[in-house]
Amino acid sequence: MMILEQIRKDNPLIICITNDVVKNFTANGLLALGASPAMATEKLEMDEFLTHAGALLINIGSIEEHDIENMLAAAKYANHHDVPIVLDPVACGASKFRKDFCLKLLETYDITVIRGNASELQALTGEANMKGTDADTSLSTEDVARAAYNKFNCAIVVTGEIDAICVNGKINLIENGTALLTKVTGGGCLLGAVVASFIYNETKPTLETLTEALTTYTVASEFAERASNGTLPGHFAVNLIDQLYLIQESDVAENRLVKEV
Amino acid sequence: MMILEQIRKDNPLIICITNDVVKNFTANGLLALGASPAMATEKLEMDEFLTHAGALLINIGSIEEHDIENMLAAAKYANHHDVPIVLDPVACGASKFRKDFCLKLLETYDITVIRGNASELQALTGEANMKGTDADTSLSTEDVARAAYNKFNCAIVVTGEIDAICVNGKINLIENGTALLTKVTGGGCLLGAVVASFIYNETKPTLETLTEALTTYTVASEFAERASNGTLPGHFAVNLIDQLYLIQESDVAENRLVKEV
Amino acid sequence: MMILEQIRKDNPLIICITNDVVKNFTANGLLALGASPAMATEKLEMDEFLTHAGALLINIGSIEEHDIENMLAAAKYANHHDVPIVLDPVACGASKFRKDFCLKLLETYDITVIRGNASELQALTGEANMKGTDADTSLSTEDVARAAYNKFNCAIVVTGEIDAICVNGKINLIENGTALLTKVTGGGCLLGAVVASFIYNETKPTLETLTEALTTYTVASEFAERASNGTLPGHFAVNLIDQLYLIQESDVAENRLVKEV
Repeated sequence: MMILEQIRKDNPLIICITNDVVKNFTANGLLALGASPAMATEKLEMDEFLTHAGALLINIGSIEEHDIENMLAAAKYANHHDVPIVLDPVACGASKFRKDFCLKLLETYDITVIRGNASELQALTGEANMKGTDADTSLSTEDVARAAYNKFNCAIVVTGEIDAICVNGKINLIENGTALLTKVTGGGCLLGAVVASFIYNETKPTLETLTEALTTYTVASEFAERASNGTLPGHFAVNLIDQLYLIQESDVAENRLVKEV
Repeated sequence: MMILEQIRKDNPLIICITNDVVKNFTANGLLALGASPAMATEKLEMDEFLTHAGALLINIGSIEEHDIENMLAAAKYANHHDVPIVLDPVACGASKFRKDFCLKLLETYDITVIRGNASELQALTGEANMKGTDADTSLSTEDVARAAYNKFNCAIVVTGEIDAICVNGKINLIENGTALLTKVTGGGCLLGAVVASFIYNETKPTLETLTEALTTYTVASEFAERASNGTLPGHFAVNLIDQLYLIQESDVAENRLVKEV
Repeated sequence: MMILEQIRKDNPLIICITNDVVKNFTANGLLALGASPAMATEKLEMDEFLTHAGALLINIGSIEEHDIENMLAAAKYANHHDVPIVLDPVACGASKFRKDFCLKLLETYDITVIRGNASELQALTGEANMKGTDADTSLSTEDVARAAYNKFNCAIVVTGEIDAICVNGKINLIENGTALLTKVTGGGCLLGAVVASFIYNETKPTLETLTEALTTYTVASEFAERASNGTLPGHFAVNLIDQLYLIQESDVAENRLVKEV
């Protein structure tokens, strides 16, 4: 059995500490996929939630100072219970506050996967240059993924026109997807949560596992674009939830555009 | 005039202190139904808001430590102004933090209705066993409703494949609804807000009032499933808002599946 | 080139400190329009964000005591960097807490535009009478806009059946729009964010600029109502995002109903 079917059988509990803007979209996306999202954030209950969790997502999109304590506590308990962590360093190049928090998290706890766009990953590796949450970079996602892997020594997912995944120094490039994912808020954030669902119970995910996560999501996005009114962002967002519910492993296998480099 | 028409005539103000994930869906659902939602939470303004309110919803889905003071203040002012309170104890079996808060609220203030799934209600009555927000129980909703009524002596709504409502020891079972309500985040949370709307200005709601609330919501969900693409969760959520806007009392009367026990 | 095209070319960064209920809808609306929303709120990063921002929206819909410091800091940095500010004083007539905050903000910092319904503006100018977020007024939006302009000496947008815009004492009335905007949560809040997008980099917007913002939004809302199932609130909200993406300046020019008074 491949991972998508396993998710639908096990309904792993995915703790999502994510931004206020995309909580609803993220929870609906994970439910549609077959995971069991819990958007709990309070440090006083993180030990209990993470005892039963398959994975933890930390997305800093709407981080405030008082969230830091909760996020650090969640990471601590996740490490303690061997729960994999996905970090989504949203707009971490836009402020020292965001970048410092991400670097502290990465230094203090074992992060399993970092998922961001090229600008965000570049900000973490040293060269920041961004406006808000939008990417602005000339380097390829492949180069950015390799640099981030070399610095942080964890799995890296860099999204862009071509997505790059780096695990243990080996890279896959994914050519699936649609530009509409950047016209809907949370298109990248939901991917971070989908990655968390695919690596449940697995603190050392393989390149193939992450490739399955990305191709499942991006092939679903292509189907969403082709469904009724799917070229318009309002309907695209609705269709994407539908397609995450409908998609089968055979769809992914038939449509995936993966290049090993 | 039945209650649904009265809601559409009076547009009662429903104060919803609810979780971050479902605020938009809840507000849109209540607006569609005909109520007037206000998602205010700050304790410094609760006295004023509750002076004009028809009902108060307290949903702990994304509770953090700093929310407790606001929720307790809201309950205090609601009791003071004779405003009915619906408590939705989301995932209260998943952490001591959640369960302790709910029990403190129930001990300190008069709660009009508790609305939850079987696991949540069981956690409150003593036998907790749950993973995140999902129910995991072998007892019938009817048994769970009766046990909760016996312990808390307030109206109880337990949702599941068959929903059970207990008022003054008498129970109605509702067989309407669709499993898609569990595939969309906030399917249960919105019901809690709909219950609050139906009991506006009524701190001692009858079994028939709560039965109207549940059948209106669950019949609307059946219509939403039958509307265009309604078997898919993205479109189902959109359709549910539409159907809460369209539904008439005659639709509910013709389609309700209520069993008195 | 008119402003809509310019927005789509420049993708101005719009910092939205807005309420929890409408963050997703607001971000999706601005992305569809062509702006680049950032929902950052933390005071520690506001100086950096506002250095690159085209405009700042402050919407108090779900304000809590601890948000005040962040909002005041954002306004301070916006003034420092000559970034225009739109204030949306949601339900400011419903509590002393809200009204006092708005008046303090208006006294302390230069606000570029106030956008609200008639009740909200009347609450700010002295005559409060409202229930939650709903308007309840007998004065015309034109009279309310003039009174607010006279008191605060900034641009005023009062929405209602007929919208009134007052800049430097001159008033335009907009007859476009649909009542469905009041059946969807955030119909007014998103307009506030759209206004912020149209006045980017412009702390002294003209009456024509604000008229373009309002007619673009309200004509898009008319198109959304006419699109598939658009007379129902669930589909209307989805269609509105689509139409903000599709709308062209020629559509606005052909359909705008503007009366100079």
